[in-house]
Amino acid sequence: MDGEIIMSGNIFGQLFRVMTFGESHGAAVGVVIDGVPAKVELSLEDIQKELDRRRPGQSAVTTQRKEPDTAEILSGVFEGRTTGTPLAVIIRNTDQKSKDYKKILNVFRPGHADFTFLKKFGIRDHRGGGRSSGRETAARVMAGAVAKKILAQHGITTAAYTKAVGDIVAQTIDLKVIEQNPVRTADASVADAMAKRIQEAGQRGDSVGGIVEAVVRGCPAGLGDPVFDKLDARLSHAVMSIGAVKGVEFGTGFRVSTMTGLENNDAFENAGGDVHTKTNNAGGILGGISNGEDIILRLAVKPTSSISKEQQTVNIEGKAADIQVSGRHDPCLCPRIVPVVEAMINITLLDCVLIQKSIT
Amino acid sequence: MDGEIIMSGNIFGQLFRVMTFGESHGAAVGVVIDGVPAKVELSLEDIQKELDRRRPGQSAVTTQRKEPDTAEILSGVFEGRTTGTPLAVIIRNTDQKSKDYKKILNVFRPGHADFTFLKKFGIRDHRGGGRSSGRETAARVMAGAVAKKILAQHGITTAAYTKAVGDIVAQTIDLKVIEQNPVRTADASVADAMAKRIQEAGQRGDSVGGIVEAVVRGCPAGLGDPVFDKLDARLSHAVMSIGAVKGVEFGTGFRVSTMTGLENNDAFENAGGDVHTKTNNAGGILGGISNGEDIILRLAVKPTSSISKEQQTVNIEGKAADIQVSGRHDPCLCPRIVPVVEAMINITLLDCVLIQKSIT
Amino acid sequence: MDGEIIMSGNIFGQLFRVMTFGESHGAAVGVVIDGVPAKVELSLEDIQKELDRRRPGQSAVTTQRKEPDTAEILSGVFEGRTTGTPLAVIIRNTDQKSKDYKKILNVFRPGHADFTFLKKFGIRDHRGGGRSSGRETAARVMAGAVAKKILAQHGITTAAYTKAVGDIVAQTIDLKVIEQNPVRTADASVADAMAKRIQEAGQRGDSVGGIVEAVVRGCPAGLGDPVFDKLDARLSHAVMSIGAVKGVEFGTGFRVSTMTGLENNDAFENAGGDVHTKTNNAGGILGGISNGEDIILRLAVKPTSSISKEQQTVNIEGKAADIQVSGRHDPCLCPRIVPVVEAMINITLLDCVLIQKSIT
Amino acid sequence: MDGEIIMSGNIFGQLFRVMTFGESHGAAVGVVIDGVPAKVELSLEDIQKELDRRRPGQSAVTTQRKEPDTAEILSGVFEGRTTGTPLAVIIRNTDQKSKDYKKILNVFRPGHADFTFLKKFGIRDHRGGGRSSGRETAARVMAGAVAKKILAQHGITTAAYTKAVGDIVAQTIDLKVIEQNPVRTADASVADAMAKRIQEAGQRGDSVGGIVEAVVRGCPAGLGDPVFDKLDARLSHAVMSIGAVKGVEFGTGFRVSTMTGLENNDAFENAGGDVHTKTNNAGGILGGISNGEDIILRLAVKPTSSISKEQQTVNIEGKAADIQVSGRHDPCLCPRIVPVVEAMINITLLDCVLIQKSIT
Repeated sequence: MDGEIIMSGNIFGQLFRVMTFGESHGAAVGVVIDGVPAKVELSLEDIQKELDRRRPGQSAVTTQRKEPDTAEILSGVFEGRTTGTPLAVIIRNTDQKSKDYKKILNVFRPGHADFTFLKKFGIRDHRGGGRSSGRETAARVMAGAVAKKILAQHGITTAAYTKAVGDIVAQTIDLKVIEQNPVRTADASVADAMAKRIQEAGQRGDSVGGIVEAVVRGCPAGLGDPVFDKLDARLSHAVMSIGAVKGVEFGTGFRVSTMTGLENNDAFENAGGDVHTKTNNAGGILGGISNGEDIILRLAVKPTSSISKEQQTVNIEGKAADIQVSGRHDPCLCPRIVPVVEAMINITLLDCVLIQKSIT
Repeated sequence: MDGEIIMSGNIFGQLFRVMTFGESHGAAVGVVIDGVPAKVELSLEDIQKELDRRRPGQSAVTTQRKEPDTAEILSGVFEGRTTGTPLAVIIRNTDQKSKDYKKILNVFRPGHADFTFLKKFGIRDHRGGGRSSGRETAARVMAGAVAKKILAQHGITTAAYTKAVGDIVAQTIDLKVIEQNPVRTADASVADAMAKRIQEAGQRGDSVGGIVEAVVRGCPAGLGDPVFDKLDARLSHAVMSIGAVKGVEFGTGFRVSTMTGLENNDAFENAGGDVHTKTNNAGGILGGISNGEDIILRLAVKPTSSISKEQQTVNIEGKAADIQVSGRHDPCLCPRIVPVVEAMINITLLDCVLIQKSIT
Repeated sequence: MDGEIIMSGNIFGQLFRVMTFGESHGAAVGVVIDGVPAKVELSLEDIQKELDRRRPGQSAVTTQRKEPDTAEILSGVFEGRTTGTPLAVIIRNTDQKSKDYKKILNVFRPGHADFTFLKKFGIRDHRGGGRSSGRETAARVMAGAVAKKILAQHGITTAAYTKAVGDIVAQTIDLKVIEQNPVRTADASVADAMAKRIQEAGQRGDSVGGIVEAVVRGCPAGLGDPVFDKLDARLSHAVMSIGAVKGVEFGTGFRVSTMTGLENNDAFENAGGDVHTKTNNAGGILGGISNGEDIILRLAVKPTSSISKEQQTVNIEGKAADIQVSGRHDPCLCPRIVPVVEAMINITLLDCVLIQKSIT
Repeated sequence: MDGEIIMSGNIFGQLFRVMTFGESHGAAVGVVIDGVPAKVELSLEDIQKELDRRRPGQSAVTTQRKEPDTAEILSGVFEGRTTGTPLAVIIRNTDQKSKDYKKILNVFRPGHADFTFLKKFGIRDHRGGGRSSGRETAARVMAGAVAKKILAQHGITTAAYTKAVGDIVAQTIDLKVIEQNPVRTADASVADAMAKRIQEAGQRGDSVGGIVEAVVRGCPAGLGDPVFDKLDARLSHAVMSIGAVKGVEFGTGFRVSTMTGLENNDAFENAGGDVHTKTNNAGGILGGISNGEDIILRLAVKPTSSISKEQQTVNIEGKAADIQVSGRHDPCLCPRIVPVVEAMINITLLDCVLIQKSIT
C-alpha cells in the first residue's frame, strides 16, 4: 500500500466515545458518539446554543467571518430524549471553496501546522488539512453540549473563562458575568481593558496571548483512576488537544515549585458532616482522583499565529519568503476557545462518570 | 455483582501497550508490554540501570529506605534480543509487610490519595492502595528502559533534569552533568545549593517543590496526530499521570500569555538545506505534530506530601486529628522523578513512532 | 445515573475503525470510518452499487418493500479520492414512521430480539430497537464498499454466494453467475430450483434457511495474528455479528471431526517457485494466519424469523398470545445477506492488512 | 525501523482485559488481567486445578510429555481475595531448551503455523514461535479460572465436553461424568469407544478429529450487544482463537439451513411466571443477546497436525521434503482442549457481565 497514508486519533474517550469527522472542503463537519446514556432530555437547541458560543463573528473582539453552523441531529434522539444509541450530529459546510488560502499554499505559515502536516503525511494538498483547522472544534462543542446536559443531571457544571489577556489578569471570579462581556472573562472590571487590548493587537496586525481558567463545580469525589488514567492526566490530554494550548496546570499549578509541603498540603476538616479541605491548592484532585472540591485548571493560550504583519518563512522548496497572513482572524483566541475548553472537560468528565459506574 | 469494584486504567499506549501490575503487599511489581519491536538488543542491565536511577537510597538527598529492586525478564527476549512478542519484566517485593503504615491507617494524610481512594472504591484496606504509591512507577521505568533502547536506534534521546528546587533555578543546560550530582540538575553551578535546600527542608520535617524539565533530541518531524492525539496532548497525559505533577507546559509555556503573535511565532529558515525554526518557542511541536526541533517540556512537581511536621486532618470517622507522617521520605521528589519522567516520555514517543509507521 | 442505559459495541476494527449509527425512527443511518487509507479513487457510485445489492425489492425472491437508500458522502473524499481523514457516509430515512409495527408492539416475536432487547435494556420503546434491525447492515455495506475498493488495489477480492437453500445445494462455483440470478448462487444449474423453493416458502407464509459461502482470492500469506486475533477468529466475529447467522466454518469445517491428520493436513508443494498446499482443507488459514490459498468460509443462515404463519408466544405481561408477523419479509435471507457478508469480510481483511503493515 | 516486527493481538476483552505473555524458550508463561472485580475469594488452588486439567500427561489418551505447570500469583490477590487491581499469574518454564524441534527446523510441518509464521514475520527463528504453540493456552486457562470463580457468584457455570471423536458421537449429556473419563465426554456409554479410537489413531502414527460442545447454565438474559458485539459474535471470536478449531455453531447450528421458520423459531411460553422458550434452537442467544436459556455451542476440532506418519512437504528453500513429526503429541485434541474452551467462554462471559453492568 505504497504511499497510502491515514490520519489517526479521531476518537476520544473510553465509554463515552466521541469520533469527529469532516473538513472544510467537504459537505459537512460532524460527530458521532458511542456511549450516550439514554432517556436524557436533549434538544437541537441545547447543541445549537453551545455552537453559537463558538461561532465566528459574534462580537467586536472575534473574527468577522460569518459561518452559520447549523446543527442537525441524525440519530440517537427520539421525541426529545436520547435513546442510548449512537448520536450523530452534523453541520453542513456552506462554503466549500478555499480560494482565500490559495496564496499561502506554497509557504509555511509560522506557528501553523503547514510544515508539520507536510512532514507527517508527505503531501500538502488533497489531504484534508482542514482537520487541523479550528473548524474541527465545532464537532467537539456539539459532543460537549451532550455531555454537559447529562452532567447537569449529576449536578456537575463546568465554566471556563478568560483569566488573562496579555498582562491584564482577572482578579475576581463571577461566573454570571462571563457571557455578558465579549472577552468572556469572569471579572467584569477588566473586561473592557481586555477587549481594548485585543482590538489594538488586531489593529496592529498582531495578536495577543492569554490564559483560560476553568472551574468544575459539583464534581463528586471518586472520579479518575489511580495509575495511567488519573483525572488530571485525562483532562490534560483533553485540553492540550485543543490547538494553541501550550500548557495546563491544576490548582496552585506551577507555583507549587516554590512551596513547602506544609504550605501546599490541603488540611482536611469536617465541614458540616462532610470531609473537606480547608484550602484547595490541589485544584480538586488528589492522587489522580477527584476529592469533591472544585476542580480548577488553567491553560496557556498562545497568541493567534495568523497575523497580517510581515513574517519571515520559507516556501515548500525551502526558499526564504515573506508572508502576511490575510483573512479575518481572531486577534486573541481566548474568547472563542472558552466553549471548546468546556466541551473537552465535559466530554472527559462524563467518560469518567461512566467508567466510575462501570467499576464500582 | 454488588459491592464489587475494579481498578481501571492500568494500560497505556496504543501500539506499544504497557500494562503495569503489582502492589507492595504482593509478591512482585511488574510490567508486560504488547507491541515491542523485534530484534532490538536488550539486556537485563539496560533495564536494571534505569531502575537503579529510580531506586530509593541513592544519595544524601533521597530517602534512606533500601529496596534492591532487581529486575527479571520473563518473556520477550531471546539471546539478547527482543523477539517482538510480549515482554514481561518483574521485580520481587522483598518486604511485603506494611507495619510502618499501621498508625496512619485511620487518618487521611493531607496531600495523599487516602481520602480519594476511599471515596472512589468505598474501602480503605484489602484493596491494593499500593497501586497509587510511587512504587508502581518502577514498572514504568522498566518499560521506559525498553522504549529508550529502541528509540536510540532512531536517534531519539530524552533527558530530564531538575530545573528548579524552590526558587533556585538552573540557568544553563549541560546534559552531561545530570548524573554527576545528586539532585540531577543540568546546571552544575546550582547543584550544591539545591542539595542544601532539600536537606534543610528534610531536617525541618518539611519538603520542597520544584520543576523538572525534559528535552527530547533527534525527534523527527511528523510524530503525533492532528486531532485528539496531538503529540503534546499525549505527552501531557503521560507525564501528568505521574503522582505529584501538577502542571505541564511546552516551549515558552505559560509565558505565551503575555506575548504577541509576532514575538511567539517561530520563523522558518533554511538551515543548510533543512527547514528549521530560528527560535523554538513552540517547544518542538506545531499543530500537535513534532517539527524536528528539540521537544521541550516542563513539569510542576509539588513538595512531597509526606512530612513529619504536624498537620491537621480528620480520621475516617470524620473526627479532627493531628498527623505526623513518619518514615523515610524524599524531601524533594525531583531527583527521583527524573527517570520516571524520561520513561513516560519515551513510552509515548515510541508509541507515536509506531503509529506514524502504521499510517504512512 | 439511575435508569440510564447505553448501547455499546457500535465500533468494529482496530486500525480501520467502523462506527455505525442510526435507527429507523431517526433522520438517517450512517457510518464513519477512522483509518481510511488516502489517495484511493472512490466515487459515490462505488458505495451506491453495493447498497443497491442489499436494497429490498430487487427481485421476486426478496421483500417487495421499497427503500431508495441513497448514499451521501459527508467527508473524507476530495476530488474523487480518499483523503485519509474520517470518511462519513449517510442514507436518509425516507419513512420515519413505524406504523406497521404497532400491532406487534406488546408481543414477543419468536426468533427476534424483542424479548432479549427488553431484558437487556429494561425498555421496549423509545430506545432505538432499530439498531438490531437489518437496516443497520446498510451502514456496514457502505463501509464494506470502501474496504473493497482499497483491497482491490492489493489484488484481494471477496465473493459471497448462496451455497444452499434448504436441501438444495450448489455443486459448482462460478463467480460470474452470482449477480445473474436472484438467489445469488454461484451454480446456475440450481438457481431456479432455489428461487422456487424460496417463493413457495413465502407463499406458505413460512421461510427457509440456507448456507452462504464466501471465497477470498488474492489474499497474501501473513494476515492475522497468532494469539487472540487469529484471522479466522476475527472473521468469525465479523460474520457472526450479522443477524441470522448461527454458525461459521472454514475450509473443511465441521467435516474435520471425522478425518484423520493424514487426510486433513494439506501437503506443501513447490508450484512454479511458490510454496502452495496441494489441497485446501484449511480454508486458507493456518495457525490463525493466511497462507496465500483461497480463504473459504461458510455461514449457517437461519430461516427468516418473520413469518405470517400463526405462532405461539407471550406478550409483555407474560400472557400467552398468538402472533402472525405481517409485512413484507424475505422468505430466505441468503440473497440479501450476501453483500453484507462480503462487507464484513472486506472490513476485517482491510483491518488485517493495515495491522500487518503496522507490525512489520 | 527497518526490519522490525511486532506481534500484535495478545490482549483480549474490553473491561475484563486479559494479556498473555511468554514463550517456551523464555523463563515463564503468564497472564495479567486488568479489570478483575474485587473481594472475590480466589486461591492458588482455584487456578492450579484448571491448569491441571489442561496439563499434558494426564491420561492414556493424552501426550505423555510431563510439564508440571505450577502457577504463582504475583499480584491482585490479598489474604485470599481479589483486590480489584491487575492480577498477574505465571508458570515457570522448567525446560527452556528446544532440542526436539531441531530436526524440523527447516521444514514446514503440514497443518502447522511454520509456513504462515515465516510469511508473516519474515523470520523463522529468534522470534517466539512458541506464542503459536499450545502452551500459550495455559495462560488462558489461568485467566479463565479467575473468570469462572467470579461467574460462579452470579450462578453462571460453563461446561465443555467431547461431543464426538471421529464418527463416535455422544448421545446423552451428563455433566457429572465429564471428569470421570479420559476423553472428557459427557456420555459415559461412548467413553471407552472414544478412548480406543484415539489410542488406535496414535498407534498408527495418525490422529483423529472431533467435536467439542459447551453448555452455559444460569446465564441471565441480557448479555451481549445488538450490533457488532453480539454475544455469539464475541464467543465465536473467543473460541475460534483456539488453535485447531475450524468451525463454531450455536444451538441448531448448520442444521438451520434445512429448516423452515416455523420449525426453527422457538415459541415463547410462560413457565412458572418466567418467559421461556419451549425449544432452544437458538442456543440461548436471540439477536445477539442471551435470552436466559442454556447457551449451547459446538466446535469443530481438527485432527492433530503433528503425526509421525510420513508426509510430503517442502523445506524453507522450497525443495520437496518428507517429514515425520516425532515427539509425543495428543492423537486427539478434544480432551485437552475442553478446559481451554471453558476458559475462553468464561473470559468472554465475564467481560459481557461487566459491560452489561456498565451500560445499564
